[in-house]
Amino acid sequence: MIENETPPGRRSGKITLVGIGPGSEAHMTQRAREAIAEADVVVGYVTYIKLVAPLLEGKEVVRKGMTEELDRAVSALEAARQGKTVALISSGDAGVYGMAGPTYEVLFQAGWTPEDPVEVEIVPGASALNACAALVGAPLTHDFCAISLSDLLTPWPAIARRLEAAAASDFVTALYNPKSGRRTRQIVEAQRLFLRHRRPGTPVAIVKSAYRRRQHIELCTLADMGEADIGMLSTVLIGNSHTFMRHGLMVTPRGYANKYELDEGGITREGERAGRSLSSGLEGWLQTLAQEHAAGATAQALALRYRLPADYILAALRDAASGQAMPSNLETQP
Amino acid sequence: MIENETPPGRRSGKITLVGIGPGSEAHMTQRAREAIAEADVVVGYVTYIKLVAPLLEGKEVVRKGMTEELDRAVSALEAARQGKTVALISSGDAGVYGMAGPTYEVLFQAGWTPEDPVEVEIVPGASALNACAALVGAPLTHDFCAISLSDLLTPWPAIARRLEAAAASDFVTALYNPKSGRRTRQIVEAQRLFLRHRRPGTPVAIVKSAYRRRQHIELCTLADMGEADIGMLSTVLIGNSHTFMRHGLMVTPRGYANKYELDEGGITREGERAGRSLSSGLEGWLQTLAQEHAAGATAQALALRYRLPADYILAALRDAASGQAMPSNLETQP
Repeated sequence: MIENETPPGRRSGKITLVGIGPGSEAHMTQRAREAIAEADVVVGYVTYIKLVAPLLEGKEVVRKGMTEELDRAVSALEAARQGKTVALISSGDAGVYGMAGPTYEVLFQAGWTPEDPVEVEIVPGASALNACAALVGAPLTHDFCAISLSDLLTPWPAIARRLEAAAASDFVTALYNPKSGRRTRQIVEAQRLFLRHRRPGTPVAIVKSAYRRRQHIELCTLADMGEADIGMLSTVLIGNSHTFMRHGLMVTPRGYANKYELDEGGITREGERAGRSLSSGLEGWLQTLAQEHAAGATAQALALRYRLPADYILAALRDAASGQAMPSNLETQP
Repeated sequence: MIENETPPGRRSGKITLVGIGPGSEAHMTQRAREAIAEADVVVGYVTYIKLVAPLLEGKEVVRKGMTEELDRAVSALEAARQGKTVALISSGDAGVYGMAGPTYEVLFQAGWTPEDPVEVEIVPGASALNACAALVGAPLTHDFCAISLSDLLTPWPAIARRLEAAAASDFVTALYNPKSGRRTRQIVEAQRLFLRHRRPGTPVAIVKSAYRRRQHIELCTLADMGEADIGMLSTVLIGNSHTFMRHGLMVTPRGYANKYELDEGGITREGERAGRSLSSGLEGWLQTLAQEHAAGATAQALALRYRLPADYILAALRDAASGQAMPSNLETQP
């Protein structure tokens, strides 16, 4: 697609993929600012270019449209091949639905390798889910996932399967690209899939333009999120089955209540030990499983009870029987 | 648990939950540095305190052990109640398995509300998954999830269900807390669950101490990750079914190949349009579904074909029949 045009001896260029964070200068990393300062050329989606406008004096600026990701990468490579240092900016993290992927795809197509005169660096940043979470409380304190509802590049069944899996296995879920002028139905389908598994009162936060001038936060529930103002610049956070809303803050407990009596000054619950796995942790659970099986529960019944595949239960029982479950040195390790 | 000890008229305190990013000063945000600079007291896990040591001169420093999250939050609240400004630091993002959750749990227990004299601010940062991804290529370019393998507060069946769901629905997966001196078997179970759905050659990256002095990166596959050096400070990234390894870089394609002929200079594939949903996107898929159903495929057969719940397929067919699937104004919208 692009030929290596670097004449021998000429200064080699560089592409820095810069995650600028949510968009305010205060939440940009030092390395992100430096990378923009070092750049001869700054390439990015026009909205992101505006966010870093105060840093662009004297620089060549290439503004691209929203769907022109591959174009942005091609422009960056062309400039780097001329020996220039190029900052290719993404909002949030350059790796999360950002420019890092498309850029490597274009670079590989062009025959680039890590030995190429053009150097590549990726500068990580806080992604939209981190920024939105910080503004609404502590929704991400437990396992979470990110799903983009954009079907411009991904078939809907793949997206729907992930929504279904995330809802069923109780991930806190961040929906990226939830809605646009044309794509209005995807968010309704997402809600429908989540309502199959989560209660209607599950806390939901919708954050638009986090840490930017038009920042807007809306807290609602899974049942009434359809009435919320959701757009191109929104991220939707759906809580897990333990997430609660209190005093306008959305919080997902880490699970201290599984181990400590929080109402009793934090003493450890009976059968649990500070700094150790729960009694329902892996080793304890394998023990329970073996006992339940010995008491007559079939692998199929245990699979239903724990909502895990029967072949996984069988493998776990096999290991427990062969003594692999509880190596005798476990308790004496430091 | 803690009484409000702020005497009337006394200056009110503040707790700032600071995500310091991966651990190098260059990857800390300006707001994170400011928050530490503004603080009278800095509270954190001893390892994180070391990472920000150059910023701590003249400050009261409270170093806590790894499992003492609730203690750290209690210490922070006690100091804030005395009118002090407290920076409670987390590595990565304060919201992702960080101090934001436990702190709100302690604050609520203590009767704190947002109207309390003690102010709370959360400063987002790049989490371990962002930092690790930046170092190995572009693995997070598509939907991803984070799962902690620590069973100190979470029952194993809940963790196993998430591993199974993430593997089955093709999320790129970041494993946090994959292994410790005592917990060595969880990572083996995770590998077993993933191998039920992903090919043995699936790319895996193991990053230890990203952007810190002892940074160590190991690229391997799902089949041989058991031999890799994984520890307390490692994050494990498992690719999805499209992730590839090339020239020592791990890349997950965004899906441009679904729409563009990348080998042919990027022209749009037949039946696809730039800036529009894929023909297999939601609207196109609903159309296909209705046609397949009209041609005799039962909802059950379609559920199997698309690996989606039969009741979801039925609901989609019902909507398609009632004309909701393709509002006539869709194509004329701007």
